Amino acid sequence: MGQLRVGMVGHAFMGAAHSQAWRTVNHAFDLPLSARMSVVCGRDDQRAAAAAAKLGWESHATDWRQVIARDDLDLVDICTPGDTHAEIAVAALAAGKHVLCEKPLANSVAEAREMAAAAAVAQTHGIQAMCGFNYRRVPAVALMRQLVATGRIGTVRHVRAVYLQDWIVDPEFPLVWRLRKDVAGSGALGDIGAHIVDLTQFVTGNLITSVTALTETFVRERPLPAPSLSGNGQVTVDDAALFLARLDGGAVATYEATRFATGRKNGLRVELNGSLGSVAFDFERMNELEFYDATRPTSEQGFNRILVTEPDHPYMAAWWPAGHLIGYEHSFTHEVRDLIAAIASNNAPAPSFADALQVQLVLDAVERSAATSAWVAVEPELAPV
Amino acid sequence: MGQLRVGMVGHAFMGAAHSQAWRTVNHAFDLPLSARMSVVCGRDDQRAAAAAAKLGWESHATDWRQVIARDDLDLVDICTPGDTHAEIAVAALAAGKHVLCEKPLANSVAEAREMAAAAAVAQTHGIQAMCGFNYRRVPAVALMRQLVATGRIGTVRHVRAVYLQDWIVDPEFPLVWRLRKDVAGSGALGDIGAHIVDLTQFVTGNLITSVTALTETFVRERPLPAPSLSGNGQVTVDDAALFLARLDGGAVATYEATRFATGRKNGLRVELNGSLGSVAFDFERMNELEFYDATRPTSEQGFNRILVTEPDHPYMAAWWPAGHLIGYEHSFTHEVRDLIAAIASNNAPAPSFADALQVQLVLDAVERSAATSAWVAVEPELAPV
Amino acid sequence: MGQLRVGMVGHAFMGAAHSQAWRTVNHAFDLPLSARMSVVCGRDDQRAAAAAAKLGWESHATDWRQVIARDDLDLVDICTPGDTHAEIAVAALAAGKHVLCEKPLANSVAEAREMAAAAAVAQTHGIQAMCGFNYRRVPAVALMRQLVATGRIGTVRHVRAVYLQDWIVDPEFPLVWRLRKDVAGSGALGDIGAHIVDLTQFVTGNLITSVTALTETFVRERPLPAPSLSGNGQVTVDDAALFLARLDGGAVATYEATRFATGRKNGLRVELNGSLGSVAFDFERMNELEFYDATRPTSEQGFNRILVTEPDHPYMAAWWPAGHLIGYEHSFTHEVRDLIAAIASNNAPAPSFADALQVQLVLDAVERSAATSAWVAVEPELAPV
Amino acid sequence: MGQLRVGMVGHAFMGAAHSQAWRTVNHAFDLPLSARMSVVCGRDDQRAAAAAAKLGWESHATDWRQVIARDDLDLVDICTPGDTHAEIAVAALAAGKHVLCEKPLANSVAEAREMAAAAAVAQTHGIQAMCGFNYRRVPAVALMRQLVATGRIGTVRHVRAVYLQDWIVDPEFPLVWRLRKDVAGSGALGDIGAHIVDLTQFVTGNLITSVTALTETFVRERPLPAPSLSGNGQVTVDDAALFLARLDGGAVATYEATRFATGRKNGLRVELNGSLGSVAFDFERMNELEFYDATRPTSEQGFNRILVTEPDHPYMAAWWPAGHLIGYEHSFTHEVRDLIAAIASNNAPAPSFADALQVQLVLDAVERSAATSAWVAVEPELAPV
Repeated sequence: MGQLRVGMVGHAFMGAAHSQAWRTVNHAFDLPLSARMSVVCGRDDQRAAAAAAKLGWESHATDWRQVIARDDLDLVDICTPGDTHAEIAVAALAAGKHVLCEKPLANSVAEAREMAAAAAVAQTHGIQAMCGFNYRRVPAVALMRQLVATGRIGTVRHVRAVYLQDWIVDPEFPLVWRLRKDVAGSGALGDIGAHIVDLTQFVTGNLITSVTALTETFVRERPLPAPSLSGNGQVTVDDAALFLARLDGGAVATYEATRFATGRKNGLRVELNGSLGSVAFDFERMNELEFYDATRPTSEQGFNRILVTEPDHPYMAAWWPAGHLIGYEHSFTHEVRDLIAAIASNNAPAPSFADALQVQLVLDAVERSAATSAWVAVEPELAPV
Repeated sequence: MGQLRVGMVGHAFMGAAHSQAWRTVNHAFDLPLSARMSVVCGRDDQRAAAAAAKLGWESHATDWRQVIARDDLDLVDICTPGDTHAEIAVAALAAGKHVLCEKPLANSVAEAREMAAAAAVAQTHGIQAMCGFNYRRVPAVALMRQLVATGRIGTVRHVRAVYLQDWIVDPEFPLVWRLRKDVAGSGALGDIGAHIVDLTQFVTGNLITSVTALTETFVRERPLPAPSLSGNGQVTVDDAALFLARLDGGAVATYEATRFATGRKNGLRVELNGSLGSVAFDFERMNELEFYDATRPTSEQGFNRILVTEPDHPYMAAWWPAGHLIGYEHSFTHEVRDLIAAIASNNAPAPSFADALQVQLVLDAVERSAATSAWVAVEPELAPV
Repeated sequence: MGQLRVGMVGHAFMGAAHSQAWRTVNHAFDLPLSARMSVVCGRDDQRAAAAAAKLGWESHATDWRQVIARDDLDLVDICTPGDTHAEIAVAALAAGKHVLCEKPLANSVAEAREMAAAAAVAQTHGIQAMCGFNYRRVPAVALMRQLVATGRIGTVRHVRAVYLQDWIVDPEFPLVWRLRKDVAGSGALGDIGAHIVDLTQFVTGNLITSVTALTETFVRERPLPAPSLSGNGQVTVDDAALFLARLDGGAVATYEATRFATGRKNGLRVELNGSLGSVAFDFERMNELEFYDATRPTSEQGFNRILVTEPDHPYMAAWWPAGHLIGYEHSFTHEVRDLIAAIASNNAPAPSFADALQVQLVLDAVERSAATSAWVAVEPELAPV
Repeated sequence: MGQLRVGMVGHAFMGAAHSQAWRTVNHAFDLPLSARMSVVCGRDDQRAAAAAAKLGWESHATDWRQVIARDDLDLVDICTPGDTHAEIAVAALAAGKHVLCEKPLANSVAEAREMAAAAAVAQTHGIQAMCGFNYRRVPAVALMRQLVATGRIGTVRHVRAVYLQDWIVDPEFPLVWRLRKDVAGSGALGDIGAHIVDLTQFVTGNLITSVTALTETFVRERPLPAPSLSGNGQVTVDDAALFLARLDGGAVATYEATRFATGRKNGLRVELNGSLGSVAFDFERMNELEFYDATRPTSEQGFNRILVTEPDHPYMAAWWPAGHLIGYEHSFTHEVRDLIAAIASNNAPAPSFADALQVQLVLDAVERSAATSAWVAVEPELAPV
């Protein structure tokens, strides 16, 4: 069996999640290529070495440019903050490496466009690029897409999406990198809002065409994080982003991404209402999907709580018997499973960089709407030249 | 339109619930007879007068014997504690009055047999008797019965029934009449256990044939209630009754009735598992029924939360638009609705006294099993002579 | 005990609900005045007579002007469509009658202003006016307000409110009056959107200051209703209204009112996130309130499902033991309970016409925003002259 | 860092789950020993080789006697059906290997006693033995134990435990080994009933002292499994086992284990009611624990849905941020984490073979009760000689 030799850049939260996926994927799924965890790269030598040991990588490195230059690697997995995505991804593709890049694709539309263009070129050489919107690979979400795609809820009229967290409600929570615009690009919007934009476009098969938005920063100043605990700094990103949208299929939508929803830890919730039925999902109960089938006899209609753990549910045949739940990390295992399968068959994986650019264009429209207090049309993606 | 002139004996909790039903029934349902709230009867003249005023009765009385002797009454509604049911009911039937008797039918099998015999005789004269197992008239329960009766869950294999309350967890809660065997007959068993016995036999259409049981009294001594607050008295009934059972259709069952389930206020829960599906009900969410249909496509199977508020659900056309809930008291309104309809059409209402006797026989078997630590067969009902 | 003699105008859905409340209120609550159901008024003599008989009114009438002119009435209860509210209410107040007016207060801001002005004048003569936002009187909602008002969730940051119904998803559902702008004023916005505007302002104690909105009509043509079944007519109101808002306390909000949320029957849901906790309510489980208390030990924090049926919960001491649910209609009983208490003590009931005018101003801002695709400030209420 | 060299016997469902645990444990937790997956053993050479490749073992073997004789192994992990547990475990302990043995410990009390005795002897030589009741290591279960142990629910009065599955409802489902007494020992009782016996004793800290039980086999004949598809065979185990029990702390309990609960896939549910509160757990929502605290103000009491994903919840600091769920397999990872920690510190892991013997004694009492229709006392464990 051939190998897919992986170099991963970044080893924090996302790096740990991706490592678990790479370690596990070939033990759960039968695939034509075997993932090999060749090298992990981080700026600090000691911490990178520790990460390699802890997360299961064969070696470590400190310079991503050297990593992408190696000829014994097939794929670069980018798990760094958003401000470095574009540079690494474009260079890796140019070096002939497949790329998996964490979301959001970039911190700006300009960068995202450049990345999508680079991916389009690479594709002509059989080099694949994928953006890591892992929630698409939650089995309940994949089932939701199936139900919509096969017409089970009819024409989608309403999209209702929230992504609710609460980890910075405490005003003494420090000014970490995710709260700095220069590193993170935006706050709740790009971090978690991006997920619900991608997810809802994915499950509906429709694109957002225009938005009206507001953003808010409730706590504008926070203590600087250790070790530089010398006073406060400015929060330069949004704490919350709310917007209404219209989709190209005729649906209307509400979106909300916030880090101030006290008590909601990872409350990604999506409901779609269609002419024939509805579906509802809550990530805090990620193994369940609710499906309302309005074509059943009236007296028996209701929201059907499907426990998405049957062998004929997406991805689930690889795991445990029905009723035995899977967790957050499995979405990443499914993601790299699909990526490996795409690479092995020389097909484009989804979501592509172009898909992720489109999400970026929506985020950009949200920011422009919030800044101007006006409805804003999502810019067209433009064909890569 | 003819009248149904009602005299009610007892005006505490059940009396208030029945009053609300009699007041409301003709405003919600179109019926051939109009209920007239003629007289309420209680031992204390002043309290009975106050009850009449508060609950909407035309007059009050203090002697139930005089009430049943009146020739301007058509029905006697018995809402007293269980130790007086038999005497009042038998006398009222003998006096040619229809009878609605609260559950449990009696405090002993002997009394219940006497009452069932009296009801059988009265029936031959067109006089009807009904026992007030009001939960049969919760729309979700009636729908459960419909689903089972029409074969939607196939052969019933499992019955799982609990009735959980917590109002006497505090050891300082006083020794009210419901905790005294001489008045109440038994504790949790007869008070709430009776409900789940009746309800499960009703919805399955099967009868319990044998049981193995335990009963327990966790707090055996309690303060005497006001005004006699002079020390403690013995609790002479069960705090909790648990039993396993076999039903004549082949199902096996667990039952539990307790007043010590901290946090469960009126947790009457029933689940049935059949060869083709399952149904589950929780009275604390009494407007919902969960239905699992194992004949649907595997990937769409799940517990379907039916909001039982559609016009084509049992009793619901009389009330509000779909999604507008009804409450506990509506079960009594439905009960007297069905009773009025039965009387008007000269049909026997259900549950009959014979049905209620059968429940009493089950309770008796439970008590004998608990006393002897042995499996006990439920005695046959015996045809009334 | 004194009487409060009531004349009710209109006897459809709302008329039935109000009748149940007037019939029940003095049997559930001890009040200084006894409601007397004197007369019900409807345009058609025969139907009004039938309504009087069915709903329990002493007499019926066909001309509301004659009703308000009677000197044996104390209060006029207006249950007609919105296009007649202003004329009846202003005349009734002028005739010295207390007024209970269903929501929305009026079909236009101009009418609502006139009504609020009339109510202000009447108030100086001891004549009271109240608008029927009944959901304020759901015990769980009243408890939510208590928790917010006593600081249990801290500063409110997020309001998330939807009112989801599905009764016109079928394009063959006829063009009833609620779908005609000339009678109903607006569609989902005024009918159910008004409820969530009032409810969220009530529980937060904050007012909406500006909005950005969209409205949509998914099915623009429908069959004319019986008996005039001759072809189709235009739907002239919104099927759905969505808006973002800012509140004067600093919170940001999403609102959605729709009649196209397949499977959601009466899905009024409100969640508030504050700096110290959160509360969440769903009318389809109206006896429950979820409360997250972020001041508890971290490992024990969670959404606490309070069954709002304890005697120390708002309004509940009048009803049944803990765990015994109440229904939709009880909100109206509580409403008239509070109204009677206010009248008896010569205090202004809430929500006043001025409160309801403020809701109308929000709805007006929503409509203007939807029409102009711009953020719109809610107009100030202006002191009545 | 030292190694813990593991040989695993059996590579079906449990073998796959254990493999995932061994592969993952050192990447999630910082431990003094590193697990090394040395060899997997199965009867069929080809299948064992495939399992080694798929599950990540360095080598494979076909004779467990040779495996336990190897001097380059430290631990034997027994994942075979119950009929072989005793022989392998006793031999492995005698060979100086630590042992992890899947539950139920054995197919008979006699075997279990022998194993417990062997473990006691081994313990004196620093050799550890543990039985794999993995559900103890679900964080929500561990939290439940903490709450009970620290007195948060007071004296436990009620235990209510079910383990509901439905995988053999179809009468055409074949006669697999789990339905044969000679291999599996018992049916639902030993397979899943064992789990709820262990779990409830673990979380309460109390032991079952006596039981009254029934068992039932609904489908007594089934098709022989492939490849021997030549007709039917007898089902020789229970499909369902139900029992009442008394615990040594004074609590009363209901238990039910069944494979005929249509729609319930892995419905392990436990509720405890105590004098000060209650806890409730459902494995189908394994990341949640419901906790009712009766010492809070009455109007705020409710079942608190704790999302057991906080860093200060048991085991969770090793995983993802709050709100990011874990799955079934994590319970095994936690199990081997605790086992490794115990071995490294030369402490006895729990549950010990003696603990598992006690569970076996309860199962034995259940079977004897079901056979004799009598209450049966659980036999004392007897001190190992």
